[in-house]
Amino acid sequence: MRRCRLYSDRLTFLVAVDRHLSGSFCSHIVHNNKYLNYSKILFHCGVLSKRWLLLKALSFPCRQESLTSLTKRLFGSTTQSTGDNSIGMEATKRNELEVVCEELSNMKRTVKAKVPKGARDFLPEQMAIREKAFRIVSKVFDRHGAVAIDTPVFELKETLTGKYGEDSKLIYDLADQGGELLSLRYDLTVPLARFLATHKITNLKRYHISRVYRRDNPAIQRGRFREFYQCDFDIAGNFSRMVPDAEVIKVLCEVLDDLAAVSSFHAKILSSYKVKVNHRGLLDSIFELCGVPKEKIRAISSAVDKLDKESWNNVRYEMIEKKGLDPCIADKIGSYVLRRDNPQKMLSSLYEDPHLSSIARSSLEDMELLLKYLEDLGVGDCLIFDLSLARGLDYYTGLIFEAVLTTDSNTSLGSIGAGGRYDNLVDMFSSRSVPCVGCSLGIERILTIYETAEREWASSMGRKIKANKTQVWIASIGEQMIRERMKLANELWKGNIAAEFSYAEKPKLNKQLQHALEEEIPLLAIIGEDELKRGMVNLKILATNEQKEVNRTEIVDAVKQALNEMEVAIE
Amino acid sequence: MRRCRLYSDRLTFLVAVDRHLSGSFCSHIVHNNKYLNYSKILFHCGVLSKRWLLLKALSFPCRQESLTSLTKRLFGSTTQSTGDNSIGMEATKRNELEVVCEELSNMKRTVKAKVPKGARDFLPEQMAIREKAFRIVSKVFDRHGAVAIDTPVFELKETLTGKYGEDSKLIYDLADQGGELLSLRYDLTVPLARFLATHKITNLKRYHISRVYRRDNPAIQRGRFREFYQCDFDIAGNFSRMVPDAEVIKVLCEVLDDLAAVSSFHAKILSSYKVKVNHRGLLDSIFELCGVPKEKIRAISSAVDKLDKESWNNVRYEMIEKKGLDPCIADKIGSYVLRRDNPQKMLSSLYEDPHLSSIARSSLEDMELLLKYLEDLGVGDCLIFDLSLARGLDYYTGLIFEAVLTTDSNTSLGSIGAGGRYDNLVDMFSSRSVPCVGCSLGIERILTIYETAEREWASSMGRKIKANKTQVWIASIGEQMIRERMKLANELWKGNIAAEFSYAEKPKLNKQLQHALEEEIPLLAIIGEDELKRGMVNLKILATNEQKEVNRTEIVDAVKQALNEMEVAIE
Repeated sequence: MRRCRLYSDRLTFLVAVDRHLSGSFCSHIVHNNKYLNYSKILFHCGVLSKRWLLLKALSFPCRQESLTSLTKRLFGSTTQSTGDNSIGMEATKRNELEVVCEELSNMKRTVKAKVPKGARDFLPEQMAIREKAFRIVSKVFDRHGAVAIDTPVFELKETLTGKYGEDSKLIYDLADQGGELLSLRYDLTVPLARFLATHKITNLKRYHISRVYRRDNPAIQRGRFREFYQCDFDIAGNFSRMVPDAEVIKVLCEVLDDLAAVSSFHAKILSSYKVKVNHRGLLDSIFELCGVPKEKIRAISSAVDKLDKESWNNVRYEMIEKKGLDPCIADKIGSYVLRRDNPQKMLSSLYEDPHLSSIARSSLEDMELLLKYLEDLGVGDCLIFDLSLARGLDYYTGLIFEAVLTTDSNTSLGSIGAGGRYDNLVDMFSSRSVPCVGCSLGIERILTIYETAEREWASSMGRKIKANKTQVWIASIGEQMIRERMKLANELWKGNIAAEFSYAEKPKLNKQLQHALEEEIPLLAIIGEDELKRGMVNLKILATNEQKEVNRTEIVDAVKQALNEMEVAIE
Repeated sequence: MRRCRLYSDRLTFLVAVDRHLSGSFCSHIVHNNKYLNYSKILFHCGVLSKRWLLLKALSFPCRQESLTSLTKRLFGSTTQSTGDNSIGMEATKRNELEVVCEELSNMKRTVKAKVPKGARDFLPEQMAIREKAFRIVSKVFDRHGAVAIDTPVFELKETLTGKYGEDSKLIYDLADQGGELLSLRYDLTVPLARFLATHKITNLKRYHISRVYRRDNPAIQRGRFREFYQCDFDIAGNFSRMVPDAEVIKVLCEVLDDLAAVSSFHAKILSSYKVKVNHRGLLDSIFELCGVPKEKIRAISSAVDKLDKESWNNVRYEMIEKKGLDPCIADKIGSYVLRRDNPQKMLSSLYEDPHLSSIARSSLEDMELLLKYLEDLGVGDCLIFDLSLARGLDYYTGLIFEAVLTTDSNTSLGSIGAGGRYDNLVDMFSSRSVPCVGCSLGIERILTIYETAEREWASSMGRKIKANKTQVWIASIGEQMIRERMKLANELWKGNIAAEFSYAEKPKLNKQLQHALEEEIPLLAIIGEDELKRGMVNLKILATNEQKEVNRTEIVDAVKQALNEMEVAIE
C-alpha cells in the first residue's frame, strides 16, 4: 500500500477516489487528517451506490473535468478508452450514466466565488461611507417634506415596455419560470408612474433611494455599473406652473452643496457645479422652425444631445449622413443649439426671435418663471441655459436639466444628476393624468469621488474609515475570564452601549489593547481577578491614556459620561 | 356631419379614429376638449403615414384588440371582411401590415398598473414604520460591533446551485440574454459565504439588511412574500467554542426585546417569545442510534422538523409510508424527538443516556457551554431544548435555533427568527475554511404585527403615522405671495429646518392651516403684506395655538427653540 500526500480538501479527496477507482494511483488516502483506507473507500463505492457517491461529489466544489472523469470511471465510458476501465458498461448503467451526465450538465460545477459582471459587493468601510452619503441626501429630501416610498425590484415586463426607446435592450428580464413575465427595474421613474396609477395617487412629493439595473457595458472607474443606486426626488400633482420644477432643481443643488459641505476635501471636488437647463417644448419648436420633419424630431434631438461630448461637425455629420437631414436644416439647428449663455440673456434673445417666440411662447414663459423662482431660492447663479441639452429619455415633456461638475479633473464624470418634467407618463397606466417633475441623482458617479474625499479627509486626521460603532472594548487580565467579559458586555448592552470583547479563550492584554487601538474604539474596560473581587472596572480613554477605576454598578453612566466628554455620539 | 360624444382619453380618441376610418361612425371627434375635424384627421392619416399613426397609437395605453382592429382598418385585411373596407390591400401594404403586426405582438399593449404577484409597494406611512423597525434592529447589531455589508441582488446561478435542497426550485433565474447566467439571491447566507471567499476574509462580524427572492406561494396575511427583507447577523471566524453562537442568540433576543420595548402595544404582541435550540450533530447521533440509514438522514430530519405544525402520527406516517422507514426505528426516533424540556433537565437526561452520550459527547458539550453562556448573557429563561427542531436548510452543521412568539394570537406566525452554525459553507467557494454562525430575523412576519402595534399606539394618542418630517408649514395671507413663501422656505432650508409651503397660486389661509393640522406639522409660519413690510414672521405652535411675532432675521433660531420646547427632534 502506497501512501499519498495529505489531501487537504474535498476536491483532492475526490480526485484521489477517482484515481483510486482507476487503480492507477493510490490505495491510501488522507482526508481531513483522517486516514481513509481501501476498505473505507470500498464502503463508499460498494455498500453505498456509485450514483450516491457521485451525487455526493456534486455537492462539493470541484472542477467539471474531475466530475466527468469520475463519472466515467464509475460507470464506464464508451466515448473514450481510459486505460484501466475496470467496470464494464451494461445497458442499465448506460441509462444511469445518461441521467447522471444530465444532472452534471445542469449543475455546472465550477463554483468560483465571483461577483456578477458590473455588480459589486460593498465592504464594511465602503458601506459606512455610502451610508453617510445616503443620510446626507435623504436629509435634504426630508427637509423638503418629501416622503420615502419603495417599489419591488422587478416589475411586470410590460410595465417597462416602450418607455426607454433604444435603451430598452438594456433591460434585464427574468427567466420565464411560469407565471408573470418580469423585468428588473431600469430606473425609479417608470415604477413611480406605475405606483401612482396603482394606488390612484394624484399628489405626492416622494423620494426613492434604491438600486436599478441596466445590461450596459460597465465602466467601474467612472462609476458605471449594471446594478447601481439612484436617489430620486419627484413631485407629482397638478400645481402652480413651474413651482415644483423650481423646487426640484433647488433640491438637486442642496444635495450637491450638502455633500460638498462635509469637509474641505469634499468641497474641493464637489462645490463647483453647473445646472444646464432647457425645455423640450422649446427644443421641439426650434426643430419645427428649422424644418425638421416631425417623425425625425426624436432622432435629431438625440443627435443634438451629444454636443456635450462631440464636436458640432460630428453631430452635423450624424444628422445629415446617418439621419438623412437636409444640410440647410442642420445648419439652422446649429445656429440655435450651439448657443449657451447666461439664462437671462438667452431668454431675451429667444424672445426677440419673432418666429420662435410666437410658436414657443408657452415654453419661454415656463423658463422665465423658472429663472425667477430659482433666483428666489438662491440658486440662480449655477444655471446655464443650454439649448443643446435634449436628454435621451422619451418621456420628458417640459423642463429638462442636468448637473455637471466644473472642476477640471471631474468633468469626465458627465452628468451627476438630471431630470425634468414628464406629464404624460402616468397616463400610460391610468386614465387619470398626473403631471410630474423630478430629478435623479447620479449617486454612484458622485460616490466615486466622494469616497476618495472621505478617505483623504480621514487620513489627513490620522484616522481610518470606521465601519463599526463599538464604543467600549472589554479586556480582561488572567485566565478563564471569557464568561466575565461576556457578563460585563451584557451589562453594557443593557445600558445601550456598543461593546465588544475578544472571542479568544485567553487573549493577552496587549493584543486586546492593540485591537481596540486599531479599530479606533474610544474606550477600554479592563477587568481582572482583583477588580472582580472588589466590584470595580478600569475604564481607559484610549485617546488620552487616562484611566480610572469606576464602580461596576455605575459603569454605564461612567461610559456615557466619558463618551460625552469625548463628544462621541451615543446614538 | 354627426358629432359624437366627448372623448375623454386617448384610447377613445383612437377608437374613434378607427371607427372614422371605417366610415361607419362619426366624422367629428372631440379630443381633450379640442374639436378635431375631418381635415385634421385626414392630416393624421394622410400627410403623416398610417404607419406613423399606428406607432403613435402603440405609445398610448389601449387594449390589444383596438390596436389590431385599427391596424386592419388602416392597412386592410385578408382574414376578415369587416363591411366597409375602404382601403384596398396591395402587396406592399401586406408587407407593411406584417411588419406592424410583428411590432404589435412584440409590444403587448395591456398596460395594467399591477405589482408583480407576491411583491408589493411600500406606501409612505408603511415605509416610515418599516424604517423605524429597521433602525431598532440595526441599532442592536451596531451595539454588538457588527459592520454592515451589501452584496448584489443577483449572484451567478452556480453560486446558489446545490445549497438549498428541494427549495432550489424556488430560485428566480434571470433570462439568458447573453453573458453570465444569474439568479436572484434566495437568502443572505450563501451570498455571505461567497463574499467571504471572494474577499478572502476569515474573520467578520457583519449584518446585512436586504431583500431576498423566492418563487413561493405568497401568503400576504402571514407576511410571506416573494420579495421580502431579511435582517441577518453572522459571526464568521475560528473562535472559542460556542462563544459566537451564544452572542448570536443573544442578539436575536435583544432585537425582539427592543422591538417590544417601543410601547405597551408593542410589548403586548412581541414580549412573549421562546427560542428553541437543538444541535445538528446531536440529531444526527440520535438518528444513527435509532438505526436510520445514512442516506435517509436528511429526509427523516425534514420530516421531524414538521413536528411544530403536524401531529406525531402524521410525521410517523410520513417517515414510514413516504420515506420507507422501519416502524420500529420511527418509534425509537419518537422516544427522543417528542421531548421538549427545560434545557438543563434535557441536557442531564441526554447525558444519562449511555449510548447517546458516548456518540454525541461533543454535541452535548456544545449545548452545555451554550446554556452557561446564555445564562451569563441573561437570556437563559427564554430557551427551550427541542429535539424535534431540525431546520430545513442543508448547510447547518452544529447549533440550530428558532424563535417563536408564544402569545396565543401570534403562534400562527411560525418562526420569527432562526439560524445556526454552518461551518462548511464557505468551503464550497474557497480552499480556506471559515466556520460561521448566524441568525436571520423574519422581519416581514414581525412587521405584520409590528405595523398594527404602531398604528394602534398612534391612534391611542389621537395621532396618525407621520411619514413626512416637515417642521414648519409656511402660510401666506393675500395674493401673489408664492415667491414670498418660496423665499422664506429657502431661509428655513438654509438653517436646516424642514419646511414646506402650498404650491397653489392663491391658497386660502384656512386651507393652509388645515393642511398643517392634517399632516401634524408642528409649526406654522405666517406672512402677509404687513409682516413683509415690517420684516416679521408670525410663528404659530399648532398644538397649543400659541402665536408670536418674530424678527425675520431670527426665524431659524425661533423655530429651533420652539421645536426644542416641544421636544420635537430637529435632526
